[in-house]
Amino acid sequence: MNSQETTERFFRNRQVIITGGLGFIGSNLAHRLLDLGARVTLVDSLIPEYGGNIFNVGDIRDRVCVNISDVRDPYAMRHLVEGQDLLFNLAGQTSHLDSMREPEVDLEINCKSQLSILETCRHVNPAIRIVFAGTRQIYGKPTYFPVDEAHPLHPVDVNGINKIAAEMYHLLYCTVYGIRCCVLRLTNTYGPRMRVKDARQTFLGIWLRQIIEGHPIQVFGDGTQRRDFNYVDDVVDAMLLAASSDEAVGKVYNLGSAEVTSLKDLAALLVETNAAGRYEIVPFSDELKKIDIGDYYSDFRKIAADLGWCPKVNLREGLTRSLEYYRRHKEAYWD
Amino acid sequence: MNSQETTERFFRNRQVIITGGLGFIGSNLAHRLLDLGARVTLVDSLIPEYGGNIFNVGDIRDRVCVNISDVRDPYAMRHLVEGQDLLFNLAGQTSHLDSMREPEVDLEINCKSQLSILETCRHVNPAIRIVFAGTRQIYGKPTYFPVDEAHPLHPVDVNGINKIAAEMYHLLYCTVYGIRCCVLRLTNTYGPRMRVKDARQTFLGIWLRQIIEGHPIQVFGDGTQRRDFNYVDDVVDAMLLAASSDEAVGKVYNLGSAEVTSLKDLAALLVETNAAGRYEIVPFSDELKKIDIGDYYSDFRKIAADLGWCPKVNLREGLTRSLEYYRRHKEAYWD
Repeated sequence: MNSQETTERFFRNRQVIITGGLGFIGSNLAHRLLDLGARVTLVDSLIPEYGGNIFNVGDIRDRVCVNISDVRDPYAMRHLVEGQDLLFNLAGQTSHLDSMREPEVDLEINCKSQLSILETCRHVNPAIRIVFAGTRQIYGKPTYFPVDEAHPLHPVDVNGINKIAAEMYHLLYCTVYGIRCCVLRLTNTYGPRMRVKDARQTFLGIWLRQIIEGHPIQVFGDGTQRRDFNYVDDVVDAMLLAASSDEAVGKVYNLGSAEVTSLKDLAALLVETNAAGRYEIVPFSDELKKIDIGDYYSDFRKIAADLGWCPKVNLREGLTRSLEYYRRHKEAYWD
Repeated sequence: MNSQETTERFFRNRQVIITGGLGFIGSNLAHRLLDLGARVTLVDSLIPEYGGNIFNVGDIRDRVCVNISDVRDPYAMRHLVEGQDLLFNLAGQTSHLDSMREPEVDLEINCKSQLSILETCRHVNPAIRIVFAGTRQIYGKPTYFPVDEAHPLHPVDVNGINKIAAEMYHLLYCTVYGIRCCVLRLTNTYGPRMRVKDARQTFLGIWLRQIIEGHPIQVFGDGTQRRDFNYVDDVVDAMLLAASSDEAVGKVYNLGSAEVTSLKDLAALLVETNAAGRYEIVPFSDELKKIDIGDYYSDFRKIAADLGWCPKVNLREGLTRSLEYYRRHKEAYWD
């Protein structure tokens, strides 16, 4: 039995809860977990500005338990967490701009609720295993490349600060109370089931919408910023490894990709993949400029070494699949 | 005119507000600011478990404005911050153990209120200057010595995490909104006007009480942990420099002392200074052991180079003055 088989067998009949379960990554993860035989509960607030979309689970609606509630509701969370084997803790406010405009909302969701969930686990289910979705945003503007996990944390927005606190709470509850947590720091993730109606989740979302609608892709800044991207299936792979490997407990891992590209080249690739369309360079607004991090790409050798994770879907393939998905289902994602 | 005179002249007729103003460092700072001719407002919640003590300002009660309110009250803070030139932001929950027992209270005070104060400043008084009292607790268990400002942040308790978020909010509001902030990371501070009825503020507080009452000093752990200490007057000096120097804006500085001592030696020195008493070694409880950081002493060369700060009061002198103070005023601090 190879290690992939071991990982997959791990989830059979497991009780799994996913916060943000109707969102982009959460719903993709839910599909995979069902395939592996897990019993899946999805928690989502369906706040219109966030990533939750009931269409994301339309095809598995009768095979999962969907619970509409907010991670800020400690009573709901207490009930839901009880008896679960695994928690994929993915709920969050993801917009950098929104975190500056309404910093206290970002704090409530990304910081306070996380502490509250951990307190709940400690009291009602200390044997649970948790995978927390962190973000590369916490590094801020990198001082060296590729960015490894030891890079200093210099967040450029409120969201980055609150995500730091959240991952530190997870690691602390692991050290002090023995709750088995693993933190993954995600870079730009894309693929089917993401929010594409605006740029709140990732700019690549709105790009996909723009090109399918026949509008020019708007590349902010000067387009030379270099970034790395993960197709959502690769991120789901990482989450399954993080949840099932003892090696991962108490660890922080960067995700990332060796395929580093400038935004301009990415836009060009998207146009090419789509066989139509164009992009335009739009200078930053003052508001955006202040919180832009410039180049970012990560060193993900630690998770490669510890857990054997490596992204498998390249950009061209991932963009092709994404375009195909949104062209087919656009009515479910546009409004 | 030397630089000390420049610093001191800076405060004449300035409108200054101190959160935690009836507490240990806040009240000592208030005394000094009055001497320098500043107009001082003190905000304090007087929550019994924290550091506020109305006796701390008994001798200056008619020369300062005292406002009893909580930094968690945004309406009070909005009114109080308006029209101030300087904010010394010292209010906080300081007990590491309490932060583990009631993590959400620590978050409300040390994290959420700080963001709220900064939002208030941004909206009603963006020209204010802020000095924020950070803590060496954010480094956690040091990986090298002396600990400089670039040391990784690995907090061992909820308090440490929330203090990280708070100082990051300050630096962010400086970068993004131009609010002139400086963060000082304090090590163990001691002297007159601190909380000595228990170990909530610092273990040295309860030691002073124990020895004056004729009880043995209780040294937790094995007593070999090495630490550095600052007498409160030196910390007040650092705060005045941080508030008045343009060089300090947007910066983070460690405080610290070159006089590094083990807890056992410190206890012995206190017994010697007191000319009576004894100490005993008490093994850690499990609860304390989990959040103890072991050795800590800091590299404070950055503030020495940038602002010319250097601690002036050595341990023997500081302990002598402290013992004298609490012997004279014990009825105001015991209960």
